[in-house]
Amino acid sequence: MAKVLTPRNEDYAQWYNDLVIKADLAENSAVRGCMVIKPYGYAIWEKMQAELDRMFKETGHSNAYFPLFIPKSFFSKEANHVEGFAKECAVVTHYRLKNDPDGKGVIIDPEAKLEEELIIRPTSETIIWHSYKNWIQSYRDLPILINQWANVVRWEMRTRLFLRTAEFLWQEGHTAHATREEAVEETLRIIDLYAQFAEDFMALPVLRGTKTENERFAGAIDTYAIEALVQDGKALQCGTSHFLGQNFARAFDVKFLDKSGKLDLVWATSWGVSTRLMGALIMGHSDDNGLILPPKLAPIQVVIVPIYKGSEQLDAIGTTALKIKADLEKQGISVKYDNRDTHKPGWKFAEYELKGVPVRLAIGPRDIENGTVELSRRDTLEKTTISQDGLTKHIISLLSEIQKNIYSKALDFRQKNTRKVDDYDTFKKELETHGGFLLAHWDGTVETELKIKEETKATIRCIPLDTSDEKGICIRSGKPSERRVIFAKAY
Amino acid sequence: MAKVLTPRNEDYAQWYNDLVIKADLAENSAVRGCMVIKPYGYAIWEKMQAELDRMFKETGHSNAYFPLFIPKSFFSKEANHVEGFAKECAVVTHYRLKNDPDGKGVIIDPEAKLEEELIIRPTSETIIWHSYKNWIQSYRDLPILINQWANVVRWEMRTRLFLRTAEFLWQEGHTAHATREEAVEETLRIIDLYAQFAEDFMALPVLRGTKTENERFAGAIDTYAIEALVQDGKALQCGTSHFLGQNFARAFDVKFLDKSGKLDLVWATSWGVSTRLMGALIMGHSDDNGLILPPKLAPIQVVIVPIYKGSEQLDAIGTTALKIKADLEKQGISVKYDNRDTHKPGWKFAEYELKGVPVRLAIGPRDIENGTVELSRRDTLEKTTISQDGLTKHIISLLSEIQKNIYSKALDFRQKNTRKVDDYDTFKKELETHGGFLLAHWDGTVETELKIKEETKATIRCIPLDTSDEKGICIRSGKPSERRVIFAKAY
Repeated sequence: MAKVLTPRNEDYAQWYNDLVIKADLAENSAVRGCMVIKPYGYAIWEKMQAELDRMFKETGHSNAYFPLFIPKSFFSKEANHVEGFAKECAVVTHYRLKNDPDGKGVIIDPEAKLEEELIIRPTSETIIWHSYKNWIQSYRDLPILINQWANVVRWEMRTRLFLRTAEFLWQEGHTAHATREEAVEETLRIIDLYAQFAEDFMALPVLRGTKTENERFAGAIDTYAIEALVQDGKALQCGTSHFLGQNFARAFDVKFLDKSGKLDLVWATSWGVSTRLMGALIMGHSDDNGLILPPKLAPIQVVIVPIYKGSEQLDAIGTTALKIKADLEKQGISVKYDNRDTHKPGWKFAEYELKGVPVRLAIGPRDIENGTVELSRRDTLEKTTISQDGLTKHIISLLSEIQKNIYSKALDFRQKNTRKVDDYDTFKKELETHGGFLLAHWDGTVETELKIKEETKATIRCIPLDTSDEKGICIRSGKPSERRVIFAKAY
Repeated sequence: MAKVLTPRNEDYAQWYNDLVIKADLAENSAVRGCMVIKPYGYAIWEKMQAELDRMFKETGHSNAYFPLFIPKSFFSKEANHVEGFAKECAVVTHYRLKNDPDGKGVIIDPEAKLEEELIIRPTSETIIWHSYKNWIQSYRDLPILINQWANVVRWEMRTRLFLRTAEFLWQEGHTAHATREEAVEETLRIIDLYAQFAEDFMALPVLRGTKTENERFAGAIDTYAIEALVQDGKALQCGTSHFLGQNFARAFDVKFLDKSGKLDLVWATSWGVSTRLMGALIMGHSDDNGLILPPKLAPIQVVIVPIYKGSEQLDAIGTTALKIKADLEKQGISVKYDNRDTHKPGWKFAEYELKGVPVRLAIGPRDIENGTVELSRRDTLEKTTISQDGLTKHIISLLSEIQKNIYSKALDFRQKNTRKVDDYDTFKKELETHGGFLLAHWDGTVETELKIKEETKATIRCIPLDTSDEKGICIRSGKPSERRVIFAKAY
């Protein structure tokens, strides 16, 4: 079978796009920049949602739902927020259409103009803090630990399936606290939760760190992020958690009586991950044959393909296959038995490789005689013939091994592509050749950061939490630096 | 404690609104007609979603996601659909704001006007069938059985929390089939699934039936609905399933090669239930003390309240309470132990009555001595003192009994309020006094239906599937009628 994907080393961007389309994950829609998430892609997203939702609830959060629309004036209330968010957004100006007098379909009814325009939420801090004002009077009403699963819209000019789309799906947490300490603790709890999710479920190692002032969320005091490194040596921001200080409480006048009876502004955090995680998952692990999915997020963990001639052989194989399927399902493993007669085994093998099913079992007449199956691992493409006895147990441990192996491979890749760089020429050369995470000294100014960005397209991904301080000299300005930061080109 | 709700017999509409607010289910937002669904209300909705989602998947459906925006021209493609849906809707005309030169916040950037306006989806048939055109070539691509969980917007002028809001949450199924028979079968499968969900989980008896031409979904050949009767004698439509024939396939040119190699238009269905179900659940069962929740949808099924003086008593009660809680949780029952010292037991009793927690256990020092608890049922408000021995078993069977009892009460109410009526005067009098479902003869014309609506505000809720045909005389026109239909005033 001909390769259906452009190889990565030929054109990485094209490979990614081919893969998203051919593996039936998503496609572009009739609306510029908006995607259709197809059932197979959505099934992966649902698995992510289920795990994250469980983790949020285990840490005391509840879900709620706030309006899609935000009155335009709300954006002007927090000075930095308006700069960051009230620009490229979808604006609702009218609430009615009418028949075109020319008989050519429908037109806007000019009489149905809204007094105040509504913005489709690009993020919900403003509408939520407007509500919190009525919910919070005393320290007894705190903390509020709310999450929302929702769609948001940011009118991006250059879009790419999952990575950057005008509409995307996400969760946004919005919490309110009585003290700075509690809010900072929450911000960190969530960035750790995100890192744990990325590593344990997506099998994707991530760096945790703070953003520089220039890369911070509009309205935040501190932004924490998790950053992954994908196969073309670019960084991909996977999630952010913001300590918002009292900025939104100030903007929306949300005060509370503390235990001593003193009136104070409420402390806030917000945090989110989106369908962008799908892009990270795909880019992090997959190869020229297709997706490689970590078993914990694979909608189908095991596929069984019969190799047969005629219905008699198929019947015999079917009995064995369904027995294996039932045994695996009893252990919570999701299994598909693909006995369609419209496609050849070779076609099916390629199809499930493309779709990243972690384990494939092929069963032919000789396997029935011998009590064996042919087992193939998607991550290594290794094939072995093994006994049907103890198969369930074997597969349980294999799925766990695959999960670990995918993570190790990604970690190994990141380690090989994380380098300390001490002069600007090497820095530029590294970016042009390997890419990767470059640990370099920076003088701490926005000016230098922007110069480096302009000259190399690299940005400071984060000031990492996980490395120790080490003084040095800024690679660009030669001024003193307190510590190395992570530079990379990024999606 | 003073009653917090307006009694039902004083003002039913006010009672409903009080209850939604006081039980912390939802509230109005800063955006006209849009609600905030608060954590407790959302937790009930999540329970509904989980069960429905399971039922959809068990019947072969997958979830996917389509864009929020629909190009305006799409609505003009299906003639009836445009009449029904492209009117009261939110229209996006611009994609950028800019700083007001006067320094007063932000204004629309006139240069960022969209070439074609985008409509916020009021329902997604058009954008989905536009996609299906590319997905379907042959009978091998059929059926497509897709569901979407999403927000939609219909610019309603008169809104009421959950029952009718400008933005609401729903699921919409959109299926494509090779034959008329298959599509009709799907339409019926879903209306049965909805009825089963309403009865088994919401404990709400519903009538299944078809809508008259006048009440049909815009673009459908047949609309099936489930209709509930709530406590003020009004009908509440809870879900609809539409047989769309080939209308949308024709509008979007979706054809397939059948097994014989002939090109034909694809057959369609669509179906949905929304957060309106929350309104039906609340109105169906609750009383002047607050919510009554069926145990299968209650976020908290059992609450334990300690009755104590001093921390020594509280400690002793806590040990027992936590043991009971752990035992119940092992059986999958959700339990809250409310040991807050900021509120008195009486306040807590009223609070959990208001919130509809099905079973309340109170434990005092004497219970610790005697090995008992005081158990209170929310549905009947009965209290009994029972032994801690065998408590888990008792509660499991009690929860099941409460679920049945709530259903029986609602069924009994509906039966008492469903009457055969044979003349127009009685019909009008019944509507003015009891309301309820009126089984009456109708001549089958839109004209008569509209006259009756104008004169009495009653509409034909459905032509019921569950009753047998019986010829008669139309109550309004005196013309012959093939069968009785269900009239009622409706939400």
